[in-house]
Amino acid sequence: MAKQKKQPRPKAETPKGFRDYFGPEVTERAEMLQQIARVYHLYGFEALESSAVETVEALGKFLPDVDRPNEGVFAWQEDSEGDKPGDWLALRYDLTAPLARVYAQHRNNLPTPYRRYAMGPVWRNEKPGPGRFRQFYQCDADTVGAPSVAADAEICAMLSDTLEQVGIPRGDYIVRVNNRKVLNGVLEVMGLEEGEQRDAVLRTIDKFDKVGEEGVRELLGKGRLDASGAYIDGVGLSDEQIDVVVGFLTAKDLAYQQSVYDLRRAVKTGKHELADWIVSELDYHEAPWTLPEVRKNAGHFYTSNLLDILRELVDESEQGQTGVDELELIRELLAAQGYGPDRIVIDPSVVRGLGYYTGPVFEAELTFEIFDEKGRKRQFGSVAGGGRYDDLVKRFTGQAVPATGVSIGVDRLLAALREKGRIGGTVEGPVVVTVMDRDRMADYQDMVGELRRAGIRAEVYLGNPKNFGNQMKYADRRRSPIAVIEGGDEKERGVVQIKDLILGAKIAENATLEEWKERPSQFEVPRAQLVEKVREILDGQGS
Amino acid sequence: MAKQKKQPRPKAETPKGFRDYFGPEVTERAEMLQQIARVYHLYGFEALESSAVETVEALGKFLPDVDRPNEGVFAWQEDSEGDKPGDWLALRYDLTAPLARVYAQHRNNLPTPYRRYAMGPVWRNEKPGPGRFRQFYQCDADTVGAPSVAADAEICAMLSDTLEQVGIPRGDYIVRVNNRKVLNGVLEVMGLEEGEQRDAVLRTIDKFDKVGEEGVRELLGKGRLDASGAYIDGVGLSDEQIDVVVGFLTAKDLAYQQSVYDLRRAVKTGKHELADWIVSELDYHEAPWTLPEVRKNAGHFYTSNLLDILRELVDESEQGQTGVDELELIRELLAAQGYGPDRIVIDPSVVRGLGYYTGPVFEAELTFEIFDEKGRKRQFGSVAGGGRYDDLVKRFTGQAVPATGVSIGVDRLLAALREKGRIGGTVEGPVVVTVMDRDRMADYQDMVGELRRAGIRAEVYLGNPKNFGNQMKYADRRRSPIAVIEGGDEKERGVVQIKDLILGAKIAENATLEEWKERPSQFEVPRAQLVEKVREILDGQGS
Repeated sequence: MAKQKKQPRPKAETPKGFRDYFGPEVTERAEMLQQIARVYHLYGFEALESSAVETVEALGKFLPDVDRPNEGVFAWQEDSEGDKPGDWLALRYDLTAPLARVYAQHRNNLPTPYRRYAMGPVWRNEKPGPGRFRQFYQCDADTVGAPSVAADAEICAMLSDTLEQVGIPRGDYIVRVNNRKVLNGVLEVMGLEEGEQRDAVLRTIDKFDKVGEEGVRELLGKGRLDASGAYIDGVGLSDEQIDVVVGFLTAKDLAYQQSVYDLRRAVKTGKHELADWIVSELDYHEAPWTLPEVRKNAGHFYTSNLLDILRELVDESEQGQTGVDELELIRELLAAQGYGPDRIVIDPSVVRGLGYYTGPVFEAELTFEIFDEKGRKRQFGSVAGGGRYDDLVKRFTGQAVPATGVSIGVDRLLAALREKGRIGGTVEGPVVVTVMDRDRMADYQDMVGELRRAGIRAEVYLGNPKNFGNQMKYADRRRSPIAVIEGGDEKERGVVQIKDLILGAKIAENATLEEWKERPSQFEVPRAQLVEKVREILDGQGS
Repeated sequence: MAKQKKQPRPKAETPKGFRDYFGPEVTERAEMLQQIARVYHLYGFEALESSAVETVEALGKFLPDVDRPNEGVFAWQEDSEGDKPGDWLALRYDLTAPLARVYAQHRNNLPTPYRRYAMGPVWRNEKPGPGRFRQFYQCDADTVGAPSVAADAEICAMLSDTLEQVGIPRGDYIVRVNNRKVLNGVLEVMGLEEGEQRDAVLRTIDKFDKVGEEGVRELLGKGRLDASGAYIDGVGLSDEQIDVVVGFLTAKDLAYQQSVYDLRRAVKTGKHELADWIVSELDYHEAPWTLPEVRKNAGHFYTSNLLDILRELVDESEQGQTGVDELELIRELLAAQGYGPDRIVIDPSVVRGLGYYTGPVFEAELTFEIFDEKGRKRQFGSVAGGGRYDDLVKRFTGQAVPATGVSIGVDRLLAALREKGRIGGTVEGPVVVTVMDRDRMADYQDMVGELRRAGIRAEVYLGNPKNFGNQMKYADRRRSPIAVIEGGDEKERGVVQIKDLILGAKIAENATLEEWKERPSQFEVPRAQLVEKVREILDGQGS
């Protein structure tokens, strides 16, 4: 008989692209989400938690990665029932597709408009990479059933409030708003229908930052010799067509130049009190416009000029005009509530990848600078985005249902708060009551009970108490602020030893300095004063 | 050519056995979990959020339903990489199996003992039934690496604190503690090794409530004629063996009778001040023991007698003796911290289904009565359970790692809090500012802005404002406490109308009563007093 093979041990590993979150990573995220939920709730949004599992049919194929329409999700087939093959199920890849399904399913019992927020993990079946996980959190707010751009403006205002609520100060973020209809209008004016030429134009627009105005003119016209010497065929548009694209791409620059002029004139004629030194800088580069004070006081010049330029550009397209009108209305609604260009700006370069957006799109960017992995300064960048999508519910019901919403990148925003020192860094560990005599466990439990009733996080050491050093190592690993010791001698004398571990660590670090040596980090107090002394030390540690 | 078939619309449905949670269902659960987390944190437990997806290999097969070892989970296979077939992945079915994997994977970076809590959804691939869902929440706390029963006692105390923290009053719950080793000791004393006979005995023990002592004697011996007239073969044990089982099953009864005697004597001799009327009831039925006062004051008689009876029963089994010793130690540790038998009791009938428990097991039951779906009174029942499992980590590492923990049935506990009126019932909806003039949207936005800055939940109506009735219907569906109205006339006069919708509904209900007719439910106030008046009405509504 063959020798029975021993079952190998299972590997203790998360699947590729998944990870575990420990302690503060979990609680800091939970607290941030609570704060976000508080703002959403104040705005009248209702919580929704849809199931993590959906039918593949209901989810649809709205992932950005449209090249692999059947991939991108974790999916499996249910067992068949008799002749009937089982449904294909999948984990949700975002919170918007499930919302469309929920609204279509429950619409008779939901108010219209339906404002809802949702927060939770989503899953993407993608090749994992560094810092790229296959499970991550999203936090969305959407308004379904409201055709008016007042709903879009509300989302933008709420996004601004949310960022400030979680701890991003005003001036450190900007919400940019655009409208898909403006770009559609531009393409319409050029006489481009859906098709290859149109796609080529969109791809070229994306290259503007790299190749500049001249490069775009070549790429859209007769072609261009790129840096490597290779010749790239042009799209073959007419000069008139190309002028429209370039006009769109340079609208921001032109608006900026005009508003510098407007602003200078206003200051000169005493109609504007903005400091002269700022005006004198305005010629040279765009930087002052990133100063919140400038944006707040002079941003309206810029926005008005920009809207005028865009309006002229899409004059012949009804859709384009609607787009500009909507942007203007959003701007007015926001301004009336005090959300000026220091917080929310119109920006025609905002695109947002997802194909389902049909109107206004928005993006929140953090403008403070961080150092990237190569030590270079750069802006922190985007932490949230969204827009209007009027066709998602229609898939189910046949009727168009207008909807608009925003999704916050939870992990990005958390990282930003860590950068700003808004979270982390506080004493996290519990007071550890050490075990000097394992027969007196009840005494030690009594101490932690007292501490907890006073609201102080505390625990008894539950490992093998033989080696006191191990207990101290444990307290260290737990990042404990304080250890409590009561041996037989202390018990007899009715006292306890209280060790300030934070101070102890500082003393150890500075062992060579005389003044540190003198400071005691261990205190003997009567047992009855345990809670009082612990509280006093914790207060001193600032926790 | 065949006519092209139109793509059918996707069905807007959750997959079978899944559901969506709306508004308060989500927020009430989140608030309860926050409160639980607060207690866990106070006890020194650290949050852990492991990934929802695990390899099938790491999850193992610990589902209660051992007859279908490969089923019970939602699983799928990863794409193959070259020749290497893809891993099988699955959604976690509980929070304990992932903890074992996490501890084995990260043990070098975790403190020992490692106290952690986790809360989140788990998934079971089971046939859905009424009230039975394939995704539900669990909320666990476990201590890994602590062999001492002090860890088990701590979990029981924490469970008791947790129930009180979320709003279950003392006296309305009981935590029952048993030890697997006691039952193992009973079987050892009977001379039964693992095998068919032993399984038959365990099955018969489960039937005790139905067939009583005589029935158990017949089933374990020569056999029994059941109610339908069919003859059931007996297990064929000796009378001595059967006596041990029956002794175990009747231990609680015997302990109760003895403690009634003890208690009566103590009251008679003036050693106990428990009321005479309670003692006079003790003969007739067990009910008084369910009174917290009786359990608190006299429960120690019962527990001491019970432990003596069990100790005698398993006298010849080392494991059994250890089991009773551990129960006694848990009882002492808890008593020293004030957790008496009014909150936590020893109960040998607690079994807990899962095969992986190796020592103490515990269960929290809510003792208040509810009406079941047939209108019969019954106790609310179990809301949490757990125990010691010393072998789960060993699967990965080969080394036994002692662990103990508890899992709270989140949905059951929420249902209990609703029964007790601890959650729900408050005004949830936002103040709705109606739109009388769609060109003055900015005015209305201004109002909600003011209300929100005062901390009052508020929104502008964003649907089609043409029909005012629809706006009121919307406010009704939103359960709004107040509607604000500002038409052209009000605007001119600098006032707003504020409708108390709660009072309005009451007036409508009582339309025939004169005194209701007189009460105004709509108030006109200067625009500047909007926030003040809204606050006043909300305060009057008790929200």
